[in-house]
Amino acid sequence: MPGSSPTVAELGEREVLARILPLLPKGRATLVPPGDDCAVVAAPAGTVCITTDTMLEGADFRLEWSSWHDLGVKAAATNLADIAAMGATPTALVVALAVPGSTPVASLTAFARGLADGIDALAPGCGVVGGDLSTAATAVIAVTALGDLGARAAVVRSGARVGDRVVVAGRLGLAGEGLALLYAEALNDADAASRLRREHADAVEAQLAPRPPIAQGAVLATAGATAMCDVSDGLAIDADRIAEASGVRIALSADALMSANPSSQLEHVLHGGEDHALLATLPAGAPLPDGVAVVGVVEDGAGVTLDGAPLAARGWDPYRH
Amino acid sequence: MPGSSPTVAELGEREVLARILPLLPKGRATLVPPGDDCAVVAAPAGTVCITTDTMLEGADFRLEWSSWHDLGVKAAATNLADIAAMGATPTALVVALAVPGSTPVASLTAFARGLADGIDALAPGCGVVGGDLSTAATAVIAVTALGDLGARAAVVRSGARVGDRVVVAGRLGLAGEGLALLYAEALNDADAASRLRREHADAVEAQLAPRPPIAQGAVLATAGATAMCDVSDGLAIDADRIAEASGVRIALSADALMSANPSSQLEHVLHGGEDHALLATLPAGAPLPDGVAVVGVVEDGAGVTLDGAPLAARGWDPYRH
Repeated sequence: MPGSSPTVAELGEREVLARILPLLPKGRATLVPPGDDCAVVAAPAGTVCITTDTMLEGADFRLEWSSWHDLGVKAAATNLADIAAMGATPTALVVALAVPGSTPVASLTAFARGLADGIDALAPGCGVVGGDLSTAATAVIAVTALGDLGARAAVVRSGARVGDRVVVAGRLGLAGEGLALLYAEALNDADAASRLRREHADAVEAQLAPRPPIAQGAVLATAGATAMCDVSDGLAIDADRIAEASGVRIALSADALMSANPSSQLEHVLHGGEDHALLATLPAGAPLPDGVAVVGVVEDGAGVTLDGAPLAARGWDPYRH
Repeated sequence: MPGSSPTVAELGEREVLARILPLLPKGRATLVPPGDDCAVVAAPAGTVCITTDTMLEGADFRLEWSSWHDLGVKAAATNLADIAAMGATPTALVVALAVPGSTPVASLTAFARGLADGIDALAPGCGVVGGDLSTAATAVIAVTALGDLGARAAVVRSGARVGDRVVVAGRLGLAGEGLALLYAEALNDADAASRLRREHADAVEAQLAPRPPIAQGAVLATAGATAMCDVSDGLAIDADRIAEASGVRIALSADALMSANPSSQLEHVLHGGEDHALLATLPAGAPLPDGVAVVGVVEDGAGVTLDGAPLAARGWDPYRH
């Protein structure tokens, strides 16, 4: 009942923090917890992976579609996926949140529970070790994630070799389908969004509160992945990034993609973003981990093909949309 | 000449990044540079310090007062100061930036040069290893910084002991004086702000493009500092945080404070925030590093006193202003 909750302006930063902090996971690698100038996090490999991603109200989410719990799950998931895509295990998040002063404190506690639930489901042991609260006219969520590589080398985008298999961990196309449904039937309409969520739970959940296969990042790295990234902007453009960085061609098979994503439309599988599945290349002789689908092969050449025909690297540009 | 610069919406993310990335320092600890899902940064101590801080147009800065170069310097300086306050050496920043699509690209390159100049002046060797560009109605700058402790233990706020000296590295009161001048004489007036900057360069520069003594953090830690924080919200409230965390009283001397900050008013020295000087406690027998002033002593008790009288912990609450 947000109506019975005080606003963040009424409660003040100290009290808001006092309600949020106990909800957040401490993290197994956390040596100095929140409350000091910095947190200190263990980095046993002697290196640390770092990524940052911002979600803005309007451009990246709508409060008619996403609950604050959803936003917590998604803010965690998108950043955890970038850590996983290096073959690393997430150790810590820091979260900067700006909201209007009129926002109910219950929204922020729901957001914190979403962060906690996302981490618990996707990367248990990761902590939320710091953050920043401030006011803004519209909500801004900026997350930075840290990860530990253990004894593995980082899996970068430039290592794909001719003859490698192209593999995917996680579903493709669901989040794009969910976004298309929301735009088509629920624009500025929270009730329609709730109905879609009941009728098309998989697709709408994948868009609003994604659960990408974070643990598969380290599994694929251990299996020998030569290149990896998460599919955030769509398979076509993300595959093109590996192709370009590695100086190879990524040859995809429509049958294999549809076999791995049987309920989705090919358009969404190829061009729908935000699934945060892991796209990797794996040497021909390497073991194929459970839950990982072969969807193509690495060839001599450039760019991305689908069944032999060039595939346009359509994608998302935040400054052009 | 911003008028001759294309806007970020006209140029698109890829081209904007192509102009910004070459301006940013690579960093001595950077193992995998920007361009992959994550950067990888060396953490030779096997631990990493992490802090995050957001600056929002309106609440935290005004474009009539701050140039984009200033904002780059300040975004770097405020985060570097939190790293220094643990006794660590900054290794990497990631920077999330959201601006209106109508923003000239020249503003973003000026911001990048400000980041680079701030790092070069304050923490050479630190890199900018990642970021995120997006659009928003008003500008949002979210920075996360990493630091390495070397062989030192983290200096937290809870270690101050009765009998320690209270010391400060860096100036106090200047940034608060600058802010008071800008509010009094340059509200919504860029010309007046420029004039103030010429006439009161030290104070206005300290507010808009601070240069805190980052390297002194590691120096104070090596000298044996038992507690430390940066003075971001004002000496009275930041000293109270050390007092509360350590279970001691911080007894400040007005004469000592004014002797170290002779051109400032006591009100600004005590309650002006944003100087990002380093406040530390140092055992009586420890060496006093160059450039560090003794301003008080740690006593048995609680809270903060000035010449023996209780000092109110007035401070900044982003949800109440």
